[in-house]
Amino acid sequence: MSNGKRILIVGGVAGGASCAARARRMDEQAEIILFERGPFVSFANCGLPYYVGDVIRREQSLLVATPELFRDRFNIQVRLHSEVVAVNRQEKTVTVRDHGSGTNYEERYDALVLSPGASPVKPPIEGLDLPGVFSVRTIPDSREIRKRIEEARAGRAVIIGGGYIGLEMAENLLRRNLQVTLVELQRQLMPLSDPEMVVPIHEALTERGADIRLGEEVARVSRSDDGLLTVHLKSGGTVDSDVVILAVGVRPEVRLAMEAGLELGPMGGIRVDERMRTSDPHIWAVGDAVEVYNVVTGSRGLMPLAGPANRQGRIAADVICGRDVRFRGVQGTAVVGVFDQVLAATGPSEKVLKRLGLWDSPLQCEKIYLHPGHHANYYPGAEVITIKLIFSKKDGRILGAQAVGKEGVEKRIDIISMAIQKGGTVFDLEEAELCYSPQFGSAKDPVNLAGMIAANVLRGDVEVVHAPEMAARPEGVCVLDVREPLEFKRGHVEGAVHIPLGELRRRMNELPRDREIWVYCYVGQRSYVAARALRQYGFRAKNLSGGYRSLLMWQKAVDL
Amino acid sequence: MSNGKRILIVGGVAGGASCAARARRMDEQAEIILFERGPFVSFANCGLPYYVGDVIRREQSLLVATPELFRDRFNIQVRLHSEVVAVNRQEKTVTVRDHGSGTNYEERYDALVLSPGASPVKPPIEGLDLPGVFSVRTIPDSREIRKRIEEARAGRAVIIGGGYIGLEMAENLLRRNLQVTLVELQRQLMPLSDPEMVVPIHEALTERGADIRLGEEVARVSRSDDGLLTVHLKSGGTVDSDVVILAVGVRPEVRLAMEAGLELGPMGGIRVDERMRTSDPHIWAVGDAVEVYNVVTGSRGLMPLAGPANRQGRIAADVICGRDVRFRGVQGTAVVGVFDQVLAATGPSEKVLKRLGLWDSPLQCEKIYLHPGHHANYYPGAEVITIKLIFSKKDGRILGAQAVGKEGVEKRIDIISMAIQKGGTVFDLEEAELCYSPQFGSAKDPVNLAGMIAANVLRGDVEVVHAPEMAARPEGVCVLDVREPLEFKRGHVEGAVHIPLGELRRRMNELPRDREIWVYCYVGQRSYVAARALRQYGFRAKNLSGGYRSLLMWQKAVDL
Repeated sequence: MSNGKRILIVGGVAGGASCAARARRMDEQAEIILFERGPFVSFANCGLPYYVGDVIRREQSLLVATPELFRDRFNIQVRLHSEVVAVNRQEKTVTVRDHGSGTNYEERYDALVLSPGASPVKPPIEGLDLPGVFSVRTIPDSREIRKRIEEARAGRAVIIGGGYIGLEMAENLLRRNLQVTLVELQRQLMPLSDPEMVVPIHEALTERGADIRLGEEVARVSRSDDGLLTVHLKSGGTVDSDVVILAVGVRPEVRLAMEAGLELGPMGGIRVDERMRTSDPHIWAVGDAVEVYNVVTGSRGLMPLAGPANRQGRIAADVICGRDVRFRGVQGTAVVGVFDQVLAATGPSEKVLKRLGLWDSPLQCEKIYLHPGHHANYYPGAEVITIKLIFSKKDGRILGAQAVGKEGVEKRIDIISMAIQKGGTVFDLEEAELCYSPQFGSAKDPVNLAGMIAANVLRGDVEVVHAPEMAARPEGVCVLDVREPLEFKRGHVEGAVHIPLGELRRRMNELPRDREIWVYCYVGQRSYVAARALRQYGFRAKNLSGGYRSLLMWQKAVDL
Repeated sequence: MSNGKRILIVGGVAGGASCAARARRMDEQAEIILFERGPFVSFANCGLPYYVGDVIRREQSLLVATPELFRDRFNIQVRLHSEVVAVNRQEKTVTVRDHGSGTNYEERYDALVLSPGASPVKPPIEGLDLPGVFSVRTIPDSREIRKRIEEARAGRAVIIGGGYIGLEMAENLLRRNLQVTLVELQRQLMPLSDPEMVVPIHEALTERGADIRLGEEVARVSRSDDGLLTVHLKSGGTVDSDVVILAVGVRPEVRLAMEAGLELGPMGGIRVDERMRTSDPHIWAVGDAVEVYNVVTGSRGLMPLAGPANRQGRIAADVICGRDVRFRGVQGTAVVGVFDQVLAATGPSEKVLKRLGLWDSPLQCEKIYLHPGHHANYYPGAEVITIKLIFSKKDGRILGAQAVGKEGVEKRIDIISMAIQKGGTVFDLEEAELCYSPQFGSAKDPVNLAGMIAANVLRGDVEVVHAPEMAARPEGVCVLDVREPLEFKRGHVEGAVHIPLGELRRRMNELPRDREIWVYCYVGQRSYVAARALRQYGFRAKNLSGGYRSLLMWQKAVDL
């Protein structure tokens, strides 16, 4: 058990800290040193936007562990302000820059773990180095942003980038009564999600006064003598601001690994095997800096998420301590909350699957939409969850799911995440046995319904069409609206025939037998019943998945 | 497709209603008639306690569907007040009692589906038929209870039975400012759960003023001339009351099936195969009246839950319409909320596994406890969830989980339910990729932590002991408390040696090498670190799973 090996760990957040603590639990005799170039170890970087927003009020709260705790509980040395600037693989040493004394020194290792994380992408735009322009990566970053907000009361902020951090910062700055302008290069927020699923998030922000500029690029940032920043857009406009937040994504910190000659992967992350080992058998790497296997797409890529980073740290420690364990890969499960709206996903989006060239083949993807209540509708307070489920038409395997709504959203994604992890199919969702009491769910939970709807498609009971097809439908298609008159009156697909479901059986003679009939209702349930009936009477009926509500979401996404 | 078969369905709630609607979607030509002896079809019986509590204010809300809706949308005949009183299997007819006209008539079937549900158990106790004594099974029941509550303002209620309905009624009657006395025969509420897990639910009720009498049996109920009820306990006491709620469980309604000569199972439910077919090939049965296969215990039993009932209804319809589908069985996933406390479970409890004789062998069960926050502790508002995970030491297969707390409880049980459904192990929980953002979860979600803790046990990294063993520990055991001095001062295990974790490595010489050391802290995490260190230094250390907190819960359960 005792071998006294020296384990050096570079980077003290998430993966690095998990690795250190696990290594100690596995090996009491090892010498474990954790190098962190910043002033803090093991801090909660996912909490930073909420610290800026004063939701988390004490900076102390963000410190998950301190060097003293590592020393006392784990007998781990933490060296802060200590940057590992070189890995000398031949000698199995690292060169450490002590930013306190300004001197360099070397430390020998038996096993080296790199957990350098990722750094904010800084595009080559003039002015991003000006005072008042911030990234949100460290506690000092947030401290500075807080300070600037407090100095410039009721000020203005420009956020560049509409991903997780950009949205969380937008919420938190709005909460602090700043005027917020968010500039996003793409034509949607949350660029890895499907655009129609992001609409409620977009609306939650604009309802609170955010000015969202999609498809806009920043040309440069300038600063006046009195400290006012101006963001110049390529389209010509300018936005004045007291603070600019740069949140256009992160890139793996691979300088050290690259300089040490470690192999990188095609996406620019450190290449590791299932055991988190790099191309050097004495060096491991974990966290945001590594490329990981995606269990759904089968490809390797970057997935900067805290959960996987923590587990990778554990696995690296286990392997270093002689265990035969492997990292299973990632699927991409994440959530973002913006005021009362929550968007969560597991597995790739349609957009990503199409970009990877996997949608039509080899995966033969299909998708369905639904809009159930988050709990029984007869119990007060049910909130709609919009779910998009992506699955393979070959075998029903679940490939991904996105959900958006106010309540119970991430719960459904977590359940589906576990199903994906276990290679589950839509039939498994159909048969899931989930907690039901009217305030928590439904006898047919949204997860069940997603499975049932998808299974109906797979079994050939119903064919579905989607909003873009409806919008670009061929001449010959007959569109049938089976909602009640009042619903039809409030808005409907242009040219739709209107026959409420309750009248359908006796009015079928009004429908053409020689044309495809695309049926819809508000969420796709009544139209499914109609489509089933029509098909059995010999009509060529298809159902608009997710109904008019999905059509509206898609249309809004197009119009944004 | 068209065959015009006649499908008769007996019972119009949950399973029956689902079956009828599904049958129509599968077969447009079938003649489908639904018989319901009560005044409503497809009503939300899980909502009844909340209707009594005025949380659900309109009786209409409880009607999930109406006969008109069945007729108009599904072309299904619903016959209310129509009780099927006999099945004539030779003739393939049923005899229907029309309670409106008081006459009987016969209807021919090609396929018959029995969905009679379960009826409240009525023990042979004198006085249970008195006015003012109610079950909570139908809308008229709840209507009557509401009426009585409104008549007897600020009155008193006695609830007999501490299961799901009993607890929900207790909450709702307390909410309506009644004095509530709850009488439960067993020494705990929620008799199928493990007693220590029910403690927070018990406390939530007593804190709101409920008088809970455990281990008490009702001898009889009497009624004075002015309508006051008195509940006489076998122990000698009496409780006066304006209303008595009888909620001691349900039993399958099998009279009709039995009289028709259909086979029953050992637990008294209707025997069905995987296709929900009874011993008569033309008769199916679904819902609370049937015995179902339990995927965890491998035995058949009763599991009166709405979710499975609905899915069984679908499956019976599919089979009748020629599909080859099977019901996968149940695992027992359920949730109950009592004020701010939520108790949820999937799979059998320790108590049930032991009663079935499965705990030690063949399943070789082990259990672990944990008390993580429902989301990141650094984000305001984290609430503790207490989780108990039961797994097989043979292969790590997850057998069951119970959780109790204020927030995010049923979410974790649903994730674990999906893992069980897919034959998952504790290693799958360890590796689960779940939504993380500080307001929704943690980088190591409670589900991950449960998996990690169990996996540590399985891999032999730590041995655990539990509260009952601690309470009855052998003479020679050295108990070690590794918490901070203030925590120790507030309460500790009698005779425990106290060495805070931070001092452990330098004070190990104070510990005996020849005795077992049982280590504990508040929730079991620090003591796990301590136990790992001690073992590596050659001590025979074991960890108290769930720590002092679990010990307190267990002790409270014993003392209740």
